[in-house]
Amino acid sequence: MAGLDEFSLIKRLFLPLAAVPESLGLSDDVALIEGRWAITADAIVAGVHFLPDDPADLIARKLIRVNLSDLAAKGAEPRFLLLTACFPRETSAEWLDRFASGLKTDCAHFKVALIGGDTVATPGPLTLSLTALGIVDGTSALLRSNARSGDNIWVSGTLGDAALGLRVAKGEAIGLSPEHAGFLLDRYRLPQPRLALGRRLIGLAHAAMDVSDGLIGDLGHICAASGKSATIEAELLPRSAAAQGADLAALAAGGDDYEVLFTAPPAADAQLAALSVELGLPLTRIGRIGEGEGVRLLGPDGAEIAGLAGYRHFS
Amino acid sequence: MAGLDEFSLIKRLFLPLAAVPESLGLSDDVALIEGRWAITADAIVAGVHFLPDDPADLIARKLIRVNLSDLAAKGAEPRFLLLTACFPRETSAEWLDRFASGLKTDCAHFKVALIGGDTVATPGPLTLSLTALGIVDGTSALLRSNARSGDNIWVSGTLGDAALGLRVAKGEAIGLSPEHAGFLLDRYRLPQPRLALGRRLIGLAHAAMDVSDGLIGDLGHICAASGKSATIEAELLPRSAAAQGADLAALAAGGDDYEVLFTAPPAADAQLAALSVELGLPLTRIGRIGEGEGVRLLGPDGAEIAGLAGYRHFS
Repeated sequence: MAGLDEFSLIKRLFLPLAAVPESLGLSDDVALIEGRWAITADAIVAGVHFLPDDPADLIARKLIRVNLSDLAAKGAEPRFLLLTACFPRETSAEWLDRFASGLKTDCAHFKVALIGGDTVATPGPLTLSLTALGIVDGTSALLRSNARSGDNIWVSGTLGDAALGLRVAKGEAIGLSPEHAGFLLDRYRLPQPRLALGRRLIGLAHAAMDVSDGLIGDLGHICAASGKSATIEAELLPRSAAAQGADLAALAAGGDDYEVLFTAPPAADAQLAALSVELGLPLTRIGRIGEGEGVRLLGPDGAEIAGLAGYRHFS
Repeated sequence: MAGLDEFSLIKRLFLPLAAVPESLGLSDDVALIEGRWAITADAIVAGVHFLPDDPADLIARKLIRVNLSDLAAKGAEPRFLLLTACFPRETSAEWLDRFASGLKTDCAHFKVALIGGDTVATPGPLTLSLTALGIVDGTSALLRSNARSGDNIWVSGTLGDAALGLRVAKGEAIGLSPEHAGFLLDRYRLPQPRLALGRRLIGLAHAAMDVSDGLIGDLGHICAASGKSATIEAELLPRSAAAQGADLAALAAGGDDYEVLFTAPPAADAQLAALSVELGLPLTRIGRIGEGEGVRLLGPDGAEIAGLAGYRHFS
């Protein structure tokens, strides 16, 4: 695609059309209308974001969850969804039933309602776009642009599981027990939007976003939006029992984790530790925000590890 | 697709997920949040809603306009757009430039801003989904469900031009002058959302929607939502100079017109005639709302003409 990657593409083409405060410069997970409605839209395509033979109900639930993950990272409470579904003509009634059943499960689970959208036929792959709206206290929204020097960098849950889960889904043997393989597959197929965490981070954290394209790339977005640098330590990156054998690339650059990456002042350390216990969700300090720009990943010897970047659609 | 058409599909699968007042039962052009934000989402796919070799800027502008047409039919004032764009990997930088230039033209023309969205690569056809938000006085929103017995049925502009324009775009010779062919092609490629009309219909009209899938089918939606019937007269359907030779099917069932179809009490006739002059836009009375159900199209002899229906994606 003419050497364009997704981020430079968005910036060059669309930023001139976005000269209103509500857009947050197209550099955050959401737009913010009336300082109160957080709104996000994401598309997923068969063969790109999920495997064509993934179970229909899990595709529906992943679609909802990747969007709610954006709301979660802003501390927003999800309310409404609009779905535009482009179904291949050969889609069976059974498949559609299962898809709708997945939507229903997660609409109920997350207390959101479908309020509109569009259904069309496509000669191409199944393509789904979801718009999600949530309520947020905009004055406290956890914007990407609010990281400050001296902030600790935190991440929820564990990293790299989804990247490994994708390998499992593709049938690539990576020497895992069935239990671990199942765990990783689940992490790939069924992200957990960290809504409770996001709401509790308001007032504690400075900047936040969800990790969808890989830790290093996404942390780079916080740094760029905040005009700061970040240093993270490879040894601190949290990994699940199933991902003990994962290489550093999966942890630092694997996509689809949908955990919350956030920065908070050291004064919040104790409260965050308590919050982790309360929510039953690991919160791990992985580095520090500083002046300057860029993201540095340090190895156990303190030397920088280069060459790891996030997922880019058009690289 | 297992005999499902688009409308029964939406109803069966999605209505159970939409049990909130904001959804308007998924039976209107928009959802209505806080009685004030009208929100709509539509997708267009290359080879289905436009021809793959249509000019990129016109594809972008049509995408915006089909969505703004939904807002127009509710009397809403458009404000914000979110775009999810699935670009084929082979898309050229030149094509993207032209696409962005079309977005820019219409964002400026309609005074709307892009506030978010998503850009992904697809192995399939160009697929674009747009969410549009507008401000409306919800207590007066021109809902589909508000048609009343005795209302006159009106339509703006002329019918069938876009259906003929599609034939022109496909190179089907239909014996037109270059001027008329150009007019029809323009009507297909560049719909005119009737925003000024929509705003002025508040207080005058009872029910309204935009004509996107063909007059008869769309009028059927108003009848179903209102629990009423409609009778329209073939001779009254407004046609442009270029469409004088069009058959009744193009006028009564051709898609993509994006005119406003509305019902209003006879007491509003004089004001609507004056409004037509003021806006420089034909407003034509084409029939009447009554009790009962269904849409009847009458020929010049008063006999019913059957067998014409709107565009359905999965028929």
